[in-house]
Amino acid sequence: MTINDFFDKDKFALNAGVKLLEVRKGYARASMEITPMHFNAGGVCQGGAIFTLADFAFAAATNSHGQLTFSITSNINFFKSESEGTLYAEAKEVFCHKRIPNCEVHITNKEGELIASFTGTGYRKDIQLPFKSIE
Amino acid sequence: MTINDFFDKDKFALNAGVKLLEVRKGYARASMEITPMHFNAGGVCQGGAIFTLADFAFAAATNSHGQLTFSITSNINFFKSESEGTLYAEAKEVFCHKRIPNCEVHITNKEGELIASFTGTGYRKDIQLPFKSIE
Amino acid sequence: MTINDFFDKDKFALNAGVKLLEVRKGYARASMEITPMHFNAGGVCQGGAIFTLADFAFAAATNSHGQLTFSITSNINFFKSESEGTLYAEAKEVFCHKRIPNCEVHITNKEGELIASFTGTGYRKDIQLPFKSIE
Amino acid sequence: MTINDFFDKDKFALNAGVKLLEVRKGYARASMEITPMHFNAGGVCQGGAIFTLADFAFAAATNSHGQLTFSITSNINFFKSESEGTLYAEAKEVFCHKRIPNCEVHITNKEGELIASFTGTGYRKDIQLPFKSIE
Repeated sequence: MTINDFFDKDKFALNAGVKLLEVRKGYARASMEITPMHFNAGGVCQGGAIFTLADFAFAAATNSHGQLTFSITSNINFFKSESEGTLYAEAKEVFCHKRIPNCEVHITNKEGELIASFTGTGYRKDIQLPFKSIE
Repeated sequence: MTINDFFDKDKFALNAGVKLLEVRKGYARASMEITPMHFNAGGVCQGGAIFTLADFAFAAATNSHGQLTFSITSNINFFKSESEGTLYAEAKEVFCHKRIPNCEVHITNKEGELIASFTGTGYRKDIQLPFKSIE
Repeated sequence: MTINDFFDKDKFALNAGVKLLEVRKGYARASMEITPMHFNAGGVCQGGAIFTLADFAFAAATNSHGQLTFSITSNINFFKSESEGTLYAEAKEVFCHKRIPNCEVHITNKEGELIASFTGTGYRKDIQLPFKSIE
Repeated sequence: MTINDFFDKDKFALNAGVKLLEVRKGYARASMEITPMHFNAGGVCQGGAIFTLADFAFAAATNSHGQLTFSITSNINFFKSESEGTLYAEAKEVFCHKRIPNCEVHITNKEGELIASFTGTGYRKDIQLPFKSIE
């Protein structure tokens, strides 16, 4: 099993149209194309959809070392509303601690503008993940 | 149009199974039944699904006054993983400012245990929402 | 050494006028009287002073079990500016995990109004603190 | 009055040893030399001192446009404890909105290692600050 196979099991992200574009140790990039199914009552992409995209990139980056890491707390800031086009999330582990890593995620629209930012703290368990180690 | 009709237009929350149970001025309660479609790669309810539930309750509570309010920043803390049963989010506006309200949301499982907490800051626009005023 | 003696060693909080009023397992209350030394350039109590008060209450509540716990991430929301009177911080551990506890802190002014809220996540080390166990 | 004169009125930051090193539109850098007065009960620099440094850099960056901007919410992540040397905070406005700007702050130690990160949201009032406009 590759790390991509593993993250294909994330049904909630998959149903939201989230795709893993790239993953390296401590780094990941994901995308989500906005469709009407992502709309909130105001007709723009729901905050929960943007969070799901960001959290997925966070999960890929922090689990890239092969050790199970889950999220314990996140902060998300919303800058611009979007109602079409593809969104991109780029996650970088800025603190690669053996127990409590921290990761920054920038979310951009198709023009490359920053539309949201996310910071997450993880907690690593002593459990190896069932995918082949990556570089 | 009632406030419930208005929030029925939130397609992303609706698709995630989120239901508005109760809404009063500055207060809202919502639920989401966990199904396999909510699972992440680890087989438990995805953080993005829990965020969507919390953010929806936040939106109902902060928009309850009839003035358009969107989220500018949120903080979410995850305490327990859940893979079945119904989750509940209870949102209380602790600071009802005319521009930048703040709302605390507690998310509980079917046993009433706190499984996550959420704090959100909104920004009110000078736009009246198209639903009948509530008490 | 009592837990109060231990927290008297917090020189930064002490210099800011922070006082520990009460501490029980998973709970603490602290105060800080605003003086001109707490002012920011705008002539009101600086956010860093309010954070110091809240973080001190968080530290007392989360370390009350006798195991060294430090802060890994916090979120603070500011609702009202204050330039006089005493501020109070009340900290409650809402998630008493053996490694990664979470604590909510409400900060009020002398009229009892909520002027700020704080949520913090701690990390417990396998180190016993040098004070007598409390009830 | 220059912007530096204005921020010299921040008594709490000044007492904590915080210095404004550089300020441009949407950007600021500040420093704080750790002394025993910054210690918490564990003998390392208190979280409130680090927050004060970060919040000061946030305030300088977001107020650099000459319009009064105060903090409404902040998130801080602590990565490493420090007990000596000078800390540096670098603040960048990543979202320069006319009402609700957002700013990222990285805090580093004398070796240039990231020891904390901070994200803050401001709220701009329709009040011009009493200092000469900067480039």
